[in-house]
Amino acid sequence: MSLETLKALFEPNSVAVIGASREPWKTGHIVFKNILEAGYRGKLYPINPKADEILGIKAYPSIKNIPETVDLAVFVIPARFVPSVLEEAGESGVKAAIIISGGFAETGSEEGRKLQEEVVKVANKWGIRFVGPNCQGINNPHLGLCASWPLIKKAGPLAIISQSGTVAATFELWAEAEGIGISKMIALGNRADINEIDLLEYLGEDPNTKAIGMYLESVSNGKKFLEVASEVSKKKPIVVLKSGRTASGAKAVASHTGSLAGEYNIYLAAFKKANVIPVDSIEELYDVTKGLALLPRPRGSNVLIITSSGGSGIISTDYSEQLGLKVTLLKEETVKALKEKLPPYCIIKNPLDLTGDATSDRYDKTLEEVVKDPNVDLVLTIFGDPIPGASEVVEKYFNLGKTIIPIYLGGGRVEEEEKAKMHSKGIPVFPTPERGVRVAKAIYEYTKNLYKRKS
Amino acid sequence: MSLETLKALFEPNSVAVIGASREPWKTGHIVFKNILEAGYRGKLYPINPKADEILGIKAYPSIKNIPETVDLAVFVIPARFVPSVLEEAGESGVKAAIIISGGFAETGSEEGRKLQEEVVKVANKWGIRFVGPNCQGINNPHLGLCASWPLIKKAGPLAIISQSGTVAATFELWAEAEGIGISKMIALGNRADINEIDLLEYLGEDPNTKAIGMYLESVSNGKKFLEVASEVSKKKPIVVLKSGRTASGAKAVASHTGSLAGEYNIYLAAFKKANVIPVDSIEELYDVTKGLALLPRPRGSNVLIITSSGGSGIISTDYSEQLGLKVTLLKEETVKALKEKLPPYCIIKNPLDLTGDATSDRYDKTLEEVVKDPNVDLVLTIFGDPIPGASEVVEKYFNLGKTIIPIYLGGGRVEEEEKAKMHSKGIPVFPTPERGVRVAKAIYEYTKNLYKRKS
Repeated sequence: MSLETLKALFEPNSVAVIGASREPWKTGHIVFKNILEAGYRGKLYPINPKADEILGIKAYPSIKNIPETVDLAVFVIPARFVPSVLEEAGESGVKAAIIISGGFAETGSEEGRKLQEEVVKVANKWGIRFVGPNCQGINNPHLGLCASWPLIKKAGPLAIISQSGTVAATFELWAEAEGIGISKMIALGNRADINEIDLLEYLGEDPNTKAIGMYLESVSNGKKFLEVASEVSKKKPIVVLKSGRTASGAKAVASHTGSLAGEYNIYLAAFKKANVIPVDSIEELYDVTKGLALLPRPRGSNVLIITSSGGSGIISTDYSEQLGLKVTLLKEETVKALKEKLPPYCIIKNPLDLTGDATSDRYDKTLEEVVKDPNVDLVLTIFGDPIPGASEVVEKYFNLGKTIIPIYLGGGRVEEEEKAKMHSKGIPVFPTPERGVRVAKAIYEYTKNLYKRKS
Repeated sequence: MSLETLKALFEPNSVAVIGASREPWKTGHIVFKNILEAGYRGKLYPINPKADEILGIKAYPSIKNIPETVDLAVFVIPARFVPSVLEEAGESGVKAAIIISGGFAETGSEEGRKLQEEVVKVANKWGIRFVGPNCQGINNPHLGLCASWPLIKKAGPLAIISQSGTVAATFELWAEAEGIGISKMIALGNRADINEIDLLEYLGEDPNTKAIGMYLESVSNGKKFLEVASEVSKKKPIVVLKSGRTASGAKAVASHTGSLAGEYNIYLAAFKKANVIPVDSIEELYDVTKGLALLPRPRGSNVLIITSSGGSGIISTDYSEQLGLKVTLLKEETVKALKEKLPPYCIIKNPLDLTGDATSDRYDKTLEEVVKDPNVDLVLTIFGDPIPGASEVVEKYFNLGKTIIPIYLGGGRVEEEEKAKMHSKGIPVFPTPERGVRVAKAIYEYTKNLYKRKS
């Protein structure tokens, strides 16, 4: 697929919402309103034969009545009308479509299957590429194009491709709440035309996307996926949550999207080959995508844990060792330098326990030495108390050759402020030691495989 | 230990803060201020020889100058002064103490070890029982006694006992943010006197505590722990996060609290015997304690998944099967009744997919039949969209014989509102399918072992 086609989907100059509605509870209203409220920077046309205007915007009875050629058409009308209206859209020169409407192949009925075939036929005839049907739409906050729900406006570096609208929405909501934001969201739905492989290719070239998260129940074409993912993963990390792993789960996949889940072990082997990072939960999908989009890459697996909380340090130590990271030893020079700088009751080992009265200044003094130590690749930097100024210190050392992974917990209001500051500076911070260590492991594995494949 | 002694710790009629300070950044100020701002319902005395009053409260130069007998003394003074001031406290009739001050055995120094011994000797002489030293204090929000930090006021059913102040604070902050609240928090510190076993006994009798979470690096006395935990777990669930599992982790435990971590497998065997629930992360500690405090107990391991989000349903199915729960089949009568009530495109299997346009009314109709089905023990009820009214429906069926575990995600502002409503009604709701399933597994195991031991 040419990347130009997907440009009409993600960066249209004009959008028509077919089935835009005045009734606030209808999807056709919500989607139209979200595009409007997200501040879409192109022209927006509601299509509704029974309305003169919707939310103050002049409505048209048909896409054919619009005085200009529209790039993107969003369908929120009953399934049975989609083929004929898509025909009209084709005649009018529409280049891309999002078919949110349900009632196609996912129903399991012969009628639904046929309707979907018809849609594909019409689309092919006019060269229209489309997402869906039966999907939660797409979002490009960099252009204010929230053709989906809920309303998400925060633009950022994370892309999410998902066979579940809810998983995509959850990912977006978390990214917005943290002030990190997303580059593109795509809820695939029945995946009758544009699939995850097309999107990987596109997002691989998308300068706003720094890492790609995916929720998949199956892949459209195993060989092609492997091929494309292998290339894209050289440029940016791909993180995948694959469901349908168990017998019951695979059965549920067939009911949900009508696809074959396949053996999870085969997926794992393929992911490894393509340097795609597999994860085990929605939270992990978010954390790892966020971490890999924003963290500098480590040179090895040597982890140092710096903490104000002894307990959090031990939990991190356990989990690092369990995941196969190396709990490193500091070089003698580093230990000596730190002994001179830090109060005598600090424990200069690994974990390096700055103890409960640690200030940001104490972290500063510590990191100043640690970034010089060749025995250290990754630094889990745990703030386990209300420690103001944490964000400034992390920022100071963030790009000095080590992979610093900040973790902040138990700090109440100060914690919220410091986390927000870090995120606004593009520094990812994690809410528990376990979640931070998981990201450390993922970025180590990704980087190691990257160099292995390059050499 | 008599429970009366611990009453003076948790429910004192009067409290003296020794080392209360006017400098806002000092721990002695923060702790005093938190007790004040938490609305402590007894008499409060700041002790500071250099101040007439602190935060508007008359200060005393020594505990001996207070005109009444004080139940509880909180120490926030340098370690070297603690033994002599504790002596004064004993003379004045103090019954219990919290020694927040650090600089004792945890320093690893001979001096620190000796100071701690002295403290124990003085306390024994006067019959004073104490928490600490080197700890983050205790909290009893039911009495407004936040002798700790950060300030946490929300009273609720969850107790947390912790060898890490940060883990305890994190637990409290989450419980407060969700509007659930805690019954008691105890940060053990060096555990020189009152230990986790004493506290288990006390909390076992505490009517405000419905479940007990613990973060432990070691147990004070294995045999005694097993004995007491076995009894208490008959009355209320005990959930334990044990760290120091790996070689590096165990080494870190020795540095942190000077105790021996021991073999984790031996702990696991003991936990099983005592029906104590082991967990693997701080989030799990919180989720499982919260779930087991508030959920009715299931009769078996048959799980039904009801969802508006196909993807979340599949993820739940996978994870339920992976954890050994049974993804059940509905009885034929139930399927028949649901077919009559639900739109034809709903998938009446397990997961039971109400699809993306599901309203709370559709959940209502579904649960009405499901609660009658003997094939169902646990109901993972997933709201994967902005669905208003979810809380009312869950409440309606919450105590009708099934263990309904609500999960809410991808719902934006509506989700926040519905979650808050559920929590205010004492219904626990979880943020992802994986976290909900983990709780389902824990409550099933706990209940099964409970009945096994009773029979």
